[in-house]
Amino acid sequence: MSKYTDIKEQAYEANMQLPKLGLVIFTFGNVSAADRDLGVFAIKPSGVAYDKLTPNDMVIVDFEGVTVKGKMRPSSDTLTHAVLYKHWEKINGIVHTHSTYATAWAQSQRDIPIFGTTHADYNTVDIPCAPPMDDHMIEGDYELQTGHQIMNYMKHKGHSYEEVEMILVGNHAPFSWGKTAEKAVYNSAILEAIAQMAFLTEQINPQAPRLKDALKNKHWQRKHGANSYYGQEESK
Amino acid sequence: MSKYTDIKEQAYEANMQLPKLGLVIFTFGNVSAADRDLGVFAIKPSGVAYDKLTPNDMVIVDFEGVTVKGKMRPSSDTLTHAVLYKHWEKINGIVHTHSTYATAWAQSQRDIPIFGTTHADYNTVDIPCAPPMDDHMIEGDYELQTGHQIMNYMKHKGHSYEEVEMILVGNHAPFSWGKTAEKAVYNSAILEAIAQMAFLTEQINPQAPRLKDALKNKHWQRKHGANSYYGQEESK
Amino acid sequence: MSKYTDIKEQAYEANMQLPKLGLVIFTFGNVSAADRDLGVFAIKPSGVAYDKLTPNDMVIVDFEGVTVKGKMRPSSDTLTHAVLYKHWEKINGIVHTHSTYATAWAQSQRDIPIFGTTHADYNTVDIPCAPPMDDHMIEGDYELQTGHQIMNYMKHKGHSYEEVEMILVGNHAPFSWGKTAEKAVYNSAILEAIAQMAFLTEQINPQAPRLKDALKNKHWQRKHGANSYYGQEESK
Amino acid sequence: MSKYTDIKEQAYEANMQLPKLGLVIFTFGNVSAADRDLGVFAIKPSGVAYDKLTPNDMVIVDFEGVTVKGKMRPSSDTLTHAVLYKHWEKINGIVHTHSTYATAWAQSQRDIPIFGTTHADYNTVDIPCAPPMDDHMIEGDYELQTGHQIMNYMKHKGHSYEEVEMILVGNHAPFSWGKTAEKAVYNSAILEAIAQMAFLTEQINPQAPRLKDALKNKHWQRKHGANSYYGQEESK
Repeated sequence: MSKYTDIKEQAYEANMQLPKLGLVIFTFGNVSAADRDLGVFAIKPSGVAYDKLTPNDMVIVDFEGVTVKGKMRPSSDTLTHAVLYKHWEKINGIVHTHSTYATAWAQSQRDIPIFGTTHADYNTVDIPCAPPMDDHMIEGDYELQTGHQIMNYMKHKGHSYEEVEMILVGNHAPFSWGKTAEKAVYNSAILEAIAQMAFLTEQINPQAPRLKDALKNKHWQRKHGANSYYGQEESK
Repeated sequence: MSKYTDIKEQAYEANMQLPKLGLVIFTFGNVSAADRDLGVFAIKPSGVAYDKLTPNDMVIVDFEGVTVKGKMRPSSDTLTHAVLYKHWEKINGIVHTHSTYATAWAQSQRDIPIFGTTHADYNTVDIPCAPPMDDHMIEGDYELQTGHQIMNYMKHKGHSYEEVEMILVGNHAPFSWGKTAEKAVYNSAILEAIAQMAFLTEQINPQAPRLKDALKNKHWQRKHGANSYYGQEESK
Repeated sequence: MSKYTDIKEQAYEANMQLPKLGLVIFTFGNVSAADRDLGVFAIKPSGVAYDKLTPNDMVIVDFEGVTVKGKMRPSSDTLTHAVLYKHWEKINGIVHTHSTYATAWAQSQRDIPIFGTTHADYNTVDIPCAPPMDDHMIEGDYELQTGHQIMNYMKHKGHSYEEVEMILVGNHAPFSWGKTAEKAVYNSAILEAIAQMAFLTEQINPQAPRLKDALKNKHWQRKHGANSYYGQEESK
Repeated sequence: MSKYTDIKEQAYEANMQLPKLGLVIFTFGNVSAADRDLGVFAIKPSGVAYDKLTPNDMVIVDFEGVTVKGKMRPSSDTLTHAVLYKHWEKINGIVHTHSTYATAWAQSQRDIPIFGTTHADYNTVDIPCAPPMDDHMIEGDYELQTGHQIMNYMKHKGHSYEEVEMILVGNHAPFSWGKTAEKAVYNSAILEAIAQMAFLTEQINPQAPRLKDALKNKHWQRKHGANSYYGQEESK
């Protein structure tokens, strides 16, 4: 038992949820779990298939992206995780996938319009799609810059990372986060469901209107507001 | 054994069918089962994952929406169930899901056109999509008003709840019902299949005509009419 | 052991393939298996769920549609099967499903264009879609007339039932057949795959051209021609 | 143990992956594994269902397409495999499937545009779609000519078979290859995922732009370049 056992277990369990939820094939995704007291996070090693993964394979990395412990090379997206942990102090889990529908929206370079209460149960805005980065950002420290692109676009849109826990990176794919790695995985499955429904909605009615404000607010408030009444007292 | 054991079992079994039939992920749905003699229904507790659910978790609620027995908070949609049971005296099961295709139609704010006999085997009209509620209904007692919106739109369309056992609520998602909780779940799976086929039909032929009256009547009559000959004597 | 045991087993096994192949939910389909010497076929009982079915439930019916043996009522589509067996003397299996993509094409009232070699491996023409029947046919002996509609449209198109083993009935759903019940089920799965690929092909390229004659002939000949070289000697 | 045991096992294992990955139904695909020292490859026998396949059923064929050992007839596509092995000396595995989305693109006769980094992780060009062959090629030695058509179109596009390991054959279906049979199967699953995402991308945004050069290069380089940092040292 090391001091990292807990986050390694969390990261492992959360990574293993990705194929079970149909969000990844092969090595198309990674989850990390942070320990704020220790100032590190545990992340999937790069290019290892889920069915070969063990908790002990998780790599321990600090918020500057430096590997602290682990025999394997961490996910190639590690610096994106690091920069988000460094600046968003209340998150303890981050997920990156190439899930089918969310990735198709990212490739389309469009925000996902808020068409229904399924979406409003999680946030009240269009799911943001950050534009592809400038060439000098891509050619430089790409994964670090991906983190900055995410943060900058959230700021540009006026979104709080505590209220909007998911984003698309244009031409690339989705990222999600949350207070735990488990919650971040949950958010990535929700995003995929929202992305599929929004695709179908526009196919069925190209003039489908966005959800109106009263419904946006109602659904968000009943799950997340001061007087929320969704879920059990202890669980939300 | 309490007097509620039977409906708690029914509600539990019916809720557990939702993920098996691919109609929900996580906590995206709820089923209730009513006992008309006792004047109550058993409903899923709010925000509890299906794989953690037990029959004993079901909450007993009366037709005014008041919790009669149960340790947990009932589904946040409980008042919608309550108001439908109160006014539609022959139903004993109600289901709400956010199943993918039915929800996409709800978000599109369109009735689902009747394109084929698969649809006519269950009812002979377009599946109604109630418009989103007025703001004052949303801001007030939202879930209760959702029940009224459903009943009002059924009346506006001239549909009997005994003949049309499914509806979409605009911008939200589907509801279905039936003589038992099991039948209501069956109807929600049928609705999802009809919704997917109708989506594909319009993609393949944007000018696809509605089913003609002779076929509507034939298919409905052979399953539900006085001289029906579908199924076994005892089962229909 | 009765003289019907063999076709009851065949019909049972073939029916059980439908849910495994994703072609039906609940009771959305039926398969029959004929014995030409006995002049009868075994068919699924009406409205019985696949997971409750046993070989002994199969109902024995003659080619006029009269039940010869069995405790249960046969499929409501029995007369369609009977009339096809009566007139098409070389088939011993028939399948009816409401599989998603094939049914969507049927609802669209369009033949499925032959876009590729996947299709040409089975036949060299557009999959025919018979128009909905005249009202007097529907209001009369509907299931019998469905059989005649299928035969008439095949004749109208100039198709041999030995070369084209699948059809759509407009506004309704697909039927397929073959030398055995197993082959008929195989054909219904092939039809569903072809229907999905053709839908996607038109979405990707609305001007996609039909397969050219040289490819149609080559693929069909290599599987079915006098000098076929697909499969093993004994199996084709 | 024969000298062919190793490639027979490889070919068997790789063939069995196809249905597990959802890339084939029935007999819709084949994989081969080559041994360069022996100058032969092991390939699936024609028309045998995956659930009946054994390693010993694999047929040993040389690079001229002549069967060297095996009781069964090899895949009808054997000459396509042979000609590719003969000319592309660094590949040891080839896969042919009729996977749904890739086949739909092939039927559409369009290259798959490069819309995102999921695609760029594997190659930096549109996935080529070779046009249907001239009639005299089809009527002649069809499967051999299919191999030449693939090689000619790769050359016409200026693609190296070591950098672009997948192609569509117009009106037909995809082929993929790689340094091992396992890698070739991996490539065919990747192609199917890319094909589905590209289809959805164009549905969501018909004006979706192609991926820009900086992103193409970055993603390809980090997986395949001289300074690649994806995966573990030993595995890439």
